[in-house]
Parts: sequence; C-alpha cells; structure tokens
Amino acid sequence: MSEITGKTKLYAIVADPVLQVKTPQNLNRLFEARGIDAVLVPMQVPATRLADWVTAMRGVLNLGGVVVTVPHKTAIARLCDELTPAAAMVGAVNVIRVEPGGRLVGDILDGRGFVAGLRTSGIEPSGQRAYLAGAGGAANAIAFSLAEAGVSALTVHNRTRDKAEEMLVRLRQAYPDISMQVGSPDPTGHDLVVNATSLGMAEGDPYPLDVDRLQPGQTVAEIIMRPEMTPLLVAARDKGCRIQLGLPMLAAQVELMARFMGAL
Amino acid sequence: MSEITGKTKLYAIVADPVLQVKTPQNLNRLFEARGIDAVLVPMQVPATRLADWVTAMRGVLNLGGVVVTVPHKTAIARLCDELTPAAAMVGAVNVIRVEPGGRLVGDILDGRGFVAGLRTSGIEPSGQRAYLAGAGGAANAIAFSLAEAGVSALTVHNRTRDKAEEMLVRLRQAYPDISMQVGSPDPTGHDLVVNATSLGMAEGDPYPLDVDRLQPGQTVAEIIMRPEMTPLLVAARDKGCRIQLGLPMLAAQVELMARFMGAL
Repeated sequence: MSEITGKTKLYAIVADPVLQVKTPQNLNRLFEARGIDAVLVPMQVPATRLADWVTAMRGVLNLGGVVVTVPHKTAIARLCDELTPAAAMVGAVNVIRVEPGGRLVGDILDGRGFVAGLRTSGIEPSGQRAYLAGAGGAANAIAFSLAEAGVSALTVHNRTRDKAEEMLVRLRQAYPDISMQVGSPDPTGHDLVVNATSLGMAEGDPYPLDVDRLQPGQTVAEIIMRPEMTPLLVAARDKGCRIQLGLPMLAAQVELMARFMGAL
Repeated sequence: MSEITGKTKLYAIVADPVLQVKTPQNLNRLFEARGIDAVLVPMQVPATRLADWVTAMRGVLNLGGVVVTVPHKTAIARLCDELTPAAAMVGAVNVIRVEPGGRLVGDILDGRGFVAGLRTSGIEPSGQRAYLAGAGGAANAIAFSLAEAGVSALTVHNRTRDKAEEMLVRLRQAYPDISMQVGSPDPTGHDLVVNATSLGMAEGDPYPLDVDRLQPGQTVAEIIMRPEMTPLLVAARDKGCRIQLGLPMLAAQVELMARFMGAL
C-alpha cells in the first residue's frame, strides 16, 4: 500500500477479538486501487471500553469513519448521533461516518451488501418471493434490504417465532405493500432462500431449514463466509439449486462502506 | 509498506496539527525494513480532547505505543502511569509504551536521539565541555542526555536566566560530579555548542548565542530541522566550526522510539 503521512485520512475497524478481521486488507486495497490517501487500521476494544473509545474518537480530527464488528454492532448504535433507517430498524450499526465536529452517523450495510452481492452474481431480487431463515441482526438487515430491493413476498422462519413476528411488524411499517409472513422450516414456494442464521459455522450444526424440500430453480444464498461451502450450500447444490456463497456480500460491502464513510 | 491485517500491531502519533509529522513515514519504513508486522498512523487530537483520548487508548488492546508531539508533550506526561528519569526531569514525554492492562510508560527521547545523532556523525560528547542555548523542554532533554553521555562540563545560556538555573538544580541532583553553570551568550571555552532553542526557525530570528565568538575547533549542533541550514549553522561554518544539522537527531530517535515501544 501507499506511504502513510500526516495527511493520510484515518479509518478504523473496531472489534474484539480483531485478529480475524479482513476489512483492513479489503479497504486498503480499495484505497490503493483508487489512489485515495487513506488507511484503515484494526483496533481491538473490549465491550467494557467501547463507550470511552467512542467519546475519544469524536475528538480525533483526521478520523473519517469506523467499521464496526462483533461484539459492538448493537452497543455502538446507541452511541451514534444519527442512524440510517436500516440501522434504526435493525438496532445495529456496522459502519460509522465521523462528520466535522465529531458527529457520528451509523448505518448497517449487511443487507445492502447482501443484495449487491446477489446482483454481482446476476441475481435480481426484485419481484422474487424470498424466504429468510433467522431474525437476528443480520437477518433484520437483509430483510430490510430485500424489501427495499422490491421482493414480492417475504417469509421469515426463526426458531423463536416471536422474534420473527416482531421483525415483520417493524418491516411492514416501512414496506406495507409487500406480502410478509412468518413461515416454517419448509422453503417451498420461494424463489430465493437465504440463510441469515449462524447455523453452518460450527461442525455438527443443524440445518437452518428443511433442505429435503429444496427444489431446482431455487436460489440458495448464505451469509456465512467460513466455511465457504456450508452444509446448507452442499445440500442445495445436490438438489440442483443455484447457490450463492457468503463472500460476495462482504466484497460488495467494501465499496459501500468506503462510500458511506466519505472516502470515495 | 506491507499489508495491514487484524494481526498488525498498532502505533500512533498524536499531534495537533498533524499534517506536518514525518513519524509515520520514518517508523513504517523501519517496520518494513525489519519485517515487523506493525503500522504507525497519525491521529490529530486537540488539546481539549487529549485526556479522553488517553483514557480510550488504554483500552485499545492491540495498541503498542504512541509517539507524542506538539502540543501534547507536557500535558501527556501527567497522564502516564510511569515516567523514565529523563521524562520525569524534563516533565515531558515524546513516546509512550502501552503495557498489558493499559499501563502507560512515558519517555522523552529528544536528548538520547540528539546524542545518538552526534555519535552517528562520529562526535563523542563524553569528556567534552558542552554549551547549551535554551532551557525549554528540548534543552532539558538534551542537557540530561549530555550529562548521561559524560560531558565534563555543561554551561547553559537562556534568555530567562531563572529557567536555566532551575534546570541545573534538577540536573545536579542526578549528576553531581559534572561541572555545571549558567552562562552568557559567549560560547568561548566549549568544545560542543548546541542550540536547543527555536531561534532560527523563523526568518529574522536573532542568533541564539554570540556567533562572533565561535572558533575553529568547536562543533556547533542544531536541533532545528527546518530550515536545514539555520543562520547559526551558516555563521558557524563561516567561522570554520564543524557543524551538525538537526535531522540526525530525529533519524536516531526513530529506532529508539520503536525500541522503547517494544516494536523491535
């Protein structure tokens, strides 16, 4: 990457642990490719120190923004001065723009990154009937962005049914014209099937949905990046479904993050 | 420089303004040359936000240390948990090591950097009769290091005579065997003549000492880096003195700083 000088704009990713993050590589490659004098560095901050850290970052005048990941996404949303509609609905933030005077604006780009990743693979969610497993932070962000992208219907399945219902109550307020319902593990009748749970990350996890009901013609998309081929994706491929790995969601987010932080 | 990842150790320089600092270039080149997975970034923090910033930095677990420059050197000394003898005597800090648990140890390396820079040029202060113009932070640090390096005598000249006297009172406690006195603008009788004031940075500044009294055989050393050739150095060269520019002091400090912060 380019030389860092006193003029270099600073960005950070805040996480704990931080060893595993890939954002420094991804963002710095983007800065380099676009000839932007900026650098993103990892900062490992425990949850107990997050509020102090945010206070201090408001006073770092050459800090342009912060990428936020586990375990801070929810806590940091409450420390921002403004949230985008997606971040407000999800109640979580994965990117912050630092505006002059130290004002912090938070957004969550998981959902838009997911949709942009689909489009990169030639999959247009507009008009599709979508099925979503999960009702946590990532699922909320993806549901919001699928609605924003114009899916015709959205079914949400979650182990804790109440969480799925709560999520749809909020989502219907923003998108009253889309048909939304809480569903079962059976994804039959949907074009786009999305796993937005963490099931599949650990060996021996159960499937997030009933893979025996998958059918050719369906697209099955993952948000899990490691393993690249989750048991769900293996089963979907075996059933003749089109599959979408988790990685493009992250790749698409890199540009969205840089743009939101004002670096591009 | 090398790729920054989640494993990269973080270092910062804190300053306000920060555009002019050269520490990122210098330290990052050193890290690169030694194959050390570390990066130093600029952070512009106004004086009013320094205390909050220090509190937050104690909680950044991958932060190895901080280089400190104008206007924070004195204020940050009071925020450290421990100071080296040099930093305690000078009452200022230009480098901090962050120890596990967020403990901050401050040192000032201006003086050792100055002495190391002299030695790089083949000038050994041990046994020399030294003359120092100035009694501010940099002068204190240099006086301490000249004493540490074993000068046989030290004369200090300062516009405000009281400040020079105070400085020597403190210095005599640490080095009772070295002959120390407050002097005049006349550097006669000294081997090594050092300007540790800022006189010579701005056009039209008076000389920091009486250059008409300079003699061949004396070494005249500067701490000012810009301009490289100060009026004092020009006059000294014209008088047949050996001259030492300000830059080697900084270059020598780069390695000392990296070492103190635990990066080497």
